[in-house]
Amino acid sequence: VKEFSDLALRRGFIYPSCEIYGGVAGFYDYGPLGTLLKRNWENLWRTFFMGLDSNFFEIQTCDIMASSVFEASGHIKNFNDPLINCLKCGKRLRPDHLLEERGIQAEGLTLPELDSRIAEAKIDCPYCKGTLSQTRLFNMMFDVKIGASEGEIGYLRPETAQGAYVSFKRLFEVCRNQLPLGLAILGRAYRNEISPRQGFYRLRELNQAELQIFFDPETVGHHKDWDSVKDTRLKTFSVKDREHGEVEERTCEETGLPQFYAYHLAKIQEFYLDVLRVPKSHFRFRELSDEEKAFYNKVHWDVEVCVDSLGGFKELGGLHYRTDHDLKGHQAVSKESMEVNIEGKKFVPHVLELSFGIDRNFWAMMDLAYDVEKERTVMRFPDSIAPYRIAVFPLMKKDGLYEKAWDIYQQLRSKYVCDFDEKGSIGKRYRRHDEIGTPYCVTVDYQTLNDDTVTLRFRDSMEQVRVKGNEIQERVV
Amino acid sequence: VKEFSDLALRRGFIYPSCEIYGGVAGFYDYGPLGTLLKRNWENLWRTFFMGLDSNFFEIQTCDIMASSVFEASGHIKNFNDPLINCLKCGKRLRPDHLLEERGIQAEGLTLPELDSRIAEAKIDCPYCKGTLSQTRLFNMMFDVKIGASEGEIGYLRPETAQGAYVSFKRLFEVCRNQLPLGLAILGRAYRNEISPRQGFYRLRELNQAELQIFFDPETVGHHKDWDSVKDTRLKTFSVKDREHGEVEERTCEETGLPQFYAYHLAKIQEFYLDVLRVPKSHFRFRELSDEEKAFYNKVHWDVEVCVDSLGGFKELGGLHYRTDHDLKGHQAVSKESMEVNIEGKKFVPHVLELSFGIDRNFWAMMDLAYDVEKERTVMRFPDSIAPYRIAVFPLMKKDGLYEKAWDIYQQLRSKYVCDFDEKGSIGKRYRRHDEIGTPYCVTVDYQTLNDDTVTLRFRDSMEQVRVKGNEIQERVV
Repeated sequence: VKEFSDLALRRGFIYPSCEIYGGVAGFYDYGPLGTLLKRNWENLWRTFFMGLDSNFFEIQTCDIMASSVFEASGHIKNFNDPLINCLKCGKRLRPDHLLEERGIQAEGLTLPELDSRIAEAKIDCPYCKGTLSQTRLFNMMFDVKIGASEGEIGYLRPETAQGAYVSFKRLFEVCRNQLPLGLAILGRAYRNEISPRQGFYRLRELNQAELQIFFDPETVGHHKDWDSVKDTRLKTFSVKDREHGEVEERTCEETGLPQFYAYHLAKIQEFYLDVLRVPKSHFRFRELSDEEKAFYNKVHWDVEVCVDSLGGFKELGGLHYRTDHDLKGHQAVSKESMEVNIEGKKFVPHVLELSFGIDRNFWAMMDLAYDVEKERTVMRFPDSIAPYRIAVFPLMKKDGLYEKAWDIYQQLRSKYVCDFDEKGSIGKRYRRHDEIGTPYCVTVDYQTLNDDTVTLRFRDSMEQVRVKGNEIQERVV
Repeated sequence: VKEFSDLALRRGFIYPSCEIYGGVAGFYDYGPLGTLLKRNWENLWRTFFMGLDSNFFEIQTCDIMASSVFEASGHIKNFNDPLINCLKCGKRLRPDHLLEERGIQAEGLTLPELDSRIAEAKIDCPYCKGTLSQTRLFNMMFDVKIGASEGEIGYLRPETAQGAYVSFKRLFEVCRNQLPLGLAILGRAYRNEISPRQGFYRLRELNQAELQIFFDPETVGHHKDWDSVKDTRLKTFSVKDREHGEVEERTCEETGLPQFYAYHLAKIQEFYLDVLRVPKSHFRFRELSDEEKAFYNKVHWDVEVCVDSLGGFKELGGLHYRTDHDLKGHQAVSKESMEVNIEGKKFVPHVLELSFGIDRNFWAMMDLAYDVEKERTVMRFPDSIAPYRIAVFPLMKKDGLYEKAWDIYQQLRSKYVCDFDEKGSIGKRYRRHDEIGTPYCVTVDYQTLNDDTVTLRFRDSMEQVRVKGNEIQERVV
């Protein structure tokens, strides 16, 4: 794991934000390669999920939102973490983490229960052995004052979802009063974690890709494209399966889930297995139990991928049947009706949410691609995810090789993200591109000047073939 | 103007954020069409400016940054607006705006000067006629508390630029110690305006596209591609020209500006005239006088476009020669050396900043495209900017026309952003797409079933031609 993080840092995939000032836990920047990889993931997500229905659209809503939004959504009341502090040194700590570090179950405990478990286990401050305070709640939203000193309070959104909910009324009209309507947001969300522990997995400033699908609840049992997925075998890990610890493969039909829900499970699996090329062994859906899931989620399965560097299967996304919880909440606080009228039938739509953490997915892509061989480190990204698709090398800077290579680079650049590398031996250049996962390298040498052929070298097999300059594109599709 | 804003709202280009809660001044969301248009602009910017040098890269850095960053940059001390309040009703106002509304010059005045001008003009509260307080300064950054209650203070970045400056040291190494090095950031910035007055032009949450070019100050007089631009005629409006009120055309060479600066002026002009297709009459560079420009900007020309709905030429961007102000500032506060060592020569690089407001550019694109004819409203976007490139219509839903049209839509969708529209008469569908600027419409009718031809209709000329289904792509390039 350490080597892999070193690579991410050394090659500028990601690095701590404000590093020269010592950084702040939970904030990372994406460097040149990280930005390319992240954008590739986002474009694949966008193309795949927006393509599911011609009434699915992407929107971009503000990060700072009015406080009423989070009154309605319940975040002001409920988006809290338990907090405890040392009465001697003042350090702020998570009581549930203190318990879990000692192997004591802390999930779902009330504040008094946390206090009594802390007392029973005789836990004191890990820094100074001081006595700990009582547990209280800490709200995880960042608040901001809008306007001059006595202005309005706003919050940085803790999830992108709310931007779609508060836009629903207008966009339902703009999109001509049709359901299902899908509103996707790819963007940042902010969570003021008390002490983020898991590096890149739990960030204070994070990126999400979320799709909110508004639909008629009476049609949840149907999906127009059901036939195309009903026999798809899903890797499911239900609450019941967990008693035996075994993942089960079930067809969409066998899950017994409503069609509208199961269809989207199938599509999510297709995205991970066929588009992102996650090995089937490393993918599963995990059903959440009633204790685990939010009260407003009628059905909730997480998308989990096995990420070795994080110790096993980790949540990278989820499919949440949020019912009318959100729209009804906004209706109550804003006094604006969220009812739609479709051919005379009036109702508040239900919401199915597809939610993905972009940073976590980015990390999983890095983890799955990472491979160390005897002679080289190689990131085995699928072509569509790799930061650079092709790297172009002139064998020498002289004798017109540079200019010839530059021409080829410019041609390829109009179609693919390419790198041009003129430094060091060709062997070193191959290694440098193996390490960042470039699937194809093109070398221009003296023979090129005679017969217009170049050496095309494949990352995974390290095979090298001679092809005509104008045939490169056909070979790298 | 009103109609045009109505269109933007009605068709969902943009709309006030958190509208159901009454909205908050200075916050707008991008709807489905706005998101497409904005992304097109961003992709054009990215492709054009990242293509200028193989050592230019895009990065994505955090919105929330440590307070030390803004201590070093001078924002904590200097990023202020003057604020005055009514001693009776408490309203918060901008003293400079109060003066300017009365035709009194307020730019560059000190606080005591503002107070005395206000007193001389006998200005009282425009809301309740109450007496006004003395002027004080209000910092325009949003601050956020990171971590539990006594945690660190951070700020939402007021410009993306600082993310590149604090990353410079690491990324210079990652990018193999070469200058010039370009670091671009496309992302949000936040400015807590006291009372934003100009709708979409002055936002509290805004989007910027900025490129910071780090270079050796001794080479400012040279640019490797100088020959390609030196005869380019720039539309310049210098401080001297302003005395006569006339814009002058000058070649890059005639401007007398350093090559490294003038080269980038030429490229910016090329981007506006050739890529965004802004009419030459609507474009100019405006030199800032010593009073207008920030003290650290050695040379500063704004990019101005004539935006009728905003009353004339407006700043959409700027080219700022920021010297070593930023890196030296961060060096002093962080104690990290910002010196580079290139072949034994040690120095702190200078910075040339290309800065663009994405929202302003978006608005200008809307404004320039807007056209009202007798029978229709039409947005004359260049193809590469238009939200949809092609719309596909089945004449009827029956007789296999729908399926045929859907097939064509799916084929085109793999290459272009397309819309599929089956509702209303074909004439109405044309009008609907004229209004959002779709350059090409394809109609599938009964003849299509016989000879596989469709009607291809051009937005600007309204000309209609019959072409084979598989020839559409050639005709819309």
